[in-house]
Amino acid sequence: MDIVPQETDAPVSPRRRSFMARGAVASLAVAGGAAQSATPDNLPPNVPRWMREPGAGFLSPPYGLPSPFEKNVLRKLPDQPAAFPTATRTPLQSLFGTNTPNGLFFERHHAGVPAIDPAQHRLMLHGLVERPLLLSMKELQRFPAVTRSHFIECSGNSMAEFKAPGKGSVQDIHGLLSGAEWTGVRLSDLLGEAGLLPSAKWILAEGADAAAMTRSIPLAKALDDALLVYGQNGEMLRPEQGYPLRLLLPGFEGNMSIKWLRRLKVGDAPFQTREETSKYTDLMPDGTARQFTFQMGVKSVITAPSARQVLDGHGFREITGLAWSGHGKISRVEVSLDGGRSWQTATLDGPVQAKALTRFRLPWVWTGQEAILQSRAVDAAGNVQPTRSALVRSDGQNSIYHYNAIQSWQVASNGEVSNVHV
Amino acid sequence: MDIVPQETDAPVSPRRRSFMARGAVASLAVAGGAAQSATPDNLPPNVPRWMREPGAGFLSPPYGLPSPFEKNVLRKLPDQPAAFPTATRTPLQSLFGTNTPNGLFFERHHAGVPAIDPAQHRLMLHGLVERPLLLSMKELQRFPAVTRSHFIECSGNSMAEFKAPGKGSVQDIHGLLSGAEWTGVRLSDLLGEAGLLPSAKWILAEGADAAAMTRSIPLAKALDDALLVYGQNGEMLRPEQGYPLRLLLPGFEGNMSIKWLRRLKVGDAPFQTREETSKYTDLMPDGTARQFTFQMGVKSVITAPSARQVLDGHGFREITGLAWSGHGKISRVEVSLDGGRSWQTATLDGPVQAKALTRFRLPWVWTGQEAILQSRAVDAAGNVQPTRSALVRSDGQNSIYHYNAIQSWQVASNGEVSNVHV
Repeated sequence: MDIVPQETDAPVSPRRRSFMARGAVASLAVAGGAAQSATPDNLPPNVPRWMREPGAGFLSPPYGLPSPFEKNVLRKLPDQPAAFPTATRTPLQSLFGTNTPNGLFFERHHAGVPAIDPAQHRLMLHGLVERPLLLSMKELQRFPAVTRSHFIECSGNSMAEFKAPGKGSVQDIHGLLSGAEWTGVRLSDLLGEAGLLPSAKWILAEGADAAAMTRSIPLAKALDDALLVYGQNGEMLRPEQGYPLRLLLPGFEGNMSIKWLRRLKVGDAPFQTREETSKYTDLMPDGTARQFTFQMGVKSVITAPSARQVLDGHGFREITGLAWSGHGKISRVEVSLDGGRSWQTATLDGPVQAKALTRFRLPWVWTGQEAILQSRAVDAAGNVQPTRSALVRSDGQNSIYHYNAIQSWQVASNGEVSNVHV
Repeated sequence: MDIVPQETDAPVSPRRRSFMARGAVASLAVAGGAAQSATPDNLPPNVPRWMREPGAGFLSPPYGLPSPFEKNVLRKLPDQPAAFPTATRTPLQSLFGTNTPNGLFFERHHAGVPAIDPAQHRLMLHGLVERPLLLSMKELQRFPAVTRSHFIECSGNSMAEFKAPGKGSVQDIHGLLSGAEWTGVRLSDLLGEAGLLPSAKWILAEGADAAAMTRSIPLAKALDDALLVYGQNGEMLRPEQGYPLRLLLPGFEGNMSIKWLRRLKVGDAPFQTREETSKYTDLMPDGTARQFTFQMGVKSVITAPSARQVLDGHGFREITGLAWSGHGKISRVEVSLDGGRSWQTATLDGPVQAKALTRFRLPWVWTGQEAILQSRAVDAAGNVQPTRSALVRSDGQNSIYHYNAIQSWQVASNGEVSNVHV
């Protein structure tokens, strides 16, 4: 038996090689004895309090929450929120992997979050169909289910970068982005039940919130990979994500994945709703507006190191971030340490999935030099994430949607990281 | 524009084909007008309240929670909990996909949940190594990270089934099982930093809880796929899962994935701790005990329909459940409707990952006949999930660990589902 806690201030010889030898500075110094300082006087030294008395039982809520030490890892309103705020952002800098926890999934709504009783909720499917349908949630959940990982990004994500480099964190700048494992019914199955008439070309999707959010969906997308989802990361959708039912259009701008879905009307033309005429169109330099720019472009961002972080010492660390594309799988991510003059290929965490967040990593030894970190994603369709100057050259600076340019993080010699346009 | 809510009591003709036509009974009848009953008298009929007034803003906690309508989807203590309960079970019957939400991940601890300050927490690596290490969390998080999906199952899961069919739900019977996407450092990388001495063969892992939970880990496992994880489903580990650091041994019995990991001691033999001598050994019919039965066997369970559920009408539905194996990937799941006399191959949701939960599905049209539903998993190593009688024949009924027999759910003609041994 050997279960007696060892003295934590026993001599240790941390002659670290490889990852650690490449560091070898203050932050890697042995910090023995720190645990000791927490023990009350009546306990032997070096044995932390949490090993000397039983821990908490099950008095906490049966639906578990993060450690109190993680209290700053939260969704965040803008620094100057509007009178009726309508968005919170995901703390990308604090997350791992590719699934965003439901409690941290970004929010965007146009009339608040409705509190819908699923027993009362109905989905109507009507218009140019042979057999209109009116379905309860229980009826919908009898259909064959599929589970798929997809990102959702607000098409207004990163919009301020069209104008000037934002002073916030990666959460503030790019946090209208999250990823989840969704479960639901193929929209094509439902349309098969209803029977499409030959003139069917577009579908109006309408939410059951007070905004009655409505968008026009091309029939091809509806028949391709559109889902009616009720599950998110293993459990029922969260209220702010459309509980109990959401349209999910993988890779399309988030606004089209209508939350609190109550109605689908099949028509022969787009319905020209407010949200696709005065809003969610892209104002070009010549004064015209692009309409129906549905797909989110190929994009990536380094989440660590990122703006407002400070590198805690020289030496080895990983550069890591997320890449995604509305066109399919990510095929390659390259990282530059010198503002785009040279590039290295990052490794991608697998399995890489289509229209889903993909995490990339590149090992880096920081020796204190200034650096400008960039990532550039390429998708399976061959799309390459543009530089900011190329994007501004083609799309101008009037639009507030579909900003997907390469992000530059400047690392100062003191370790401070900030957002720059190069 | 077409955003005026339609009358929900407008005539609809739901002559449903295919999935729905295979149902065509009471539960599929149109339930139009249900939404109407919720509208106050001063609102037009058929427009639910949640479309006539703004929804909630961001007053809710910034770390989001499920809908109040999901208040019964919770972890659950045993029906007769002990004075100091030490386990809660995951509501498998209510979940989708393969990731268990962190708030519903099963719990098992031996001295409560310690509240560990990550700034004070240290990991010591010592014993038969060239260079002992003492690392802070910040230092550990500088190592290269990997993210992988793996299940964790308590080796005592389903133990009561050795004796008699439990009367609870699938949560009560098999709920010491969950799956997550884990992020952390390869233990082999850390051992490489420390430098193993030639005599190194086993590693003692010790937790920083008041139980000082300790287990002996074979070196081959440590060098294969063992991880030191700090991330769970995208965020930091939850307190009850080992915050801030947990050893993760994919496919091994859950007890060995030491939570609140504080110490790794490299030795030349097993350490024969309490948890691998008087506990976590398997008592055989001849009075001997099997020791070091680490790997969890190939196993599966149908989660819907499952015990204590009642089928809501005849017609089409999916049979769905989870399969997993400590030996690698699931290669096949078969489902029987007649207590094991005939089998059909279920479809597996992809991507299928090694030592991870895998969801299977089989379409079913229930016409009211009695049925005994079973699932049988096969893994890539060729292991086949045993029948209960075969398992009892080989292992007897004294053991309380490693029960992985085929589960039988009896469906009565009134739709009630119950646990039976056949």
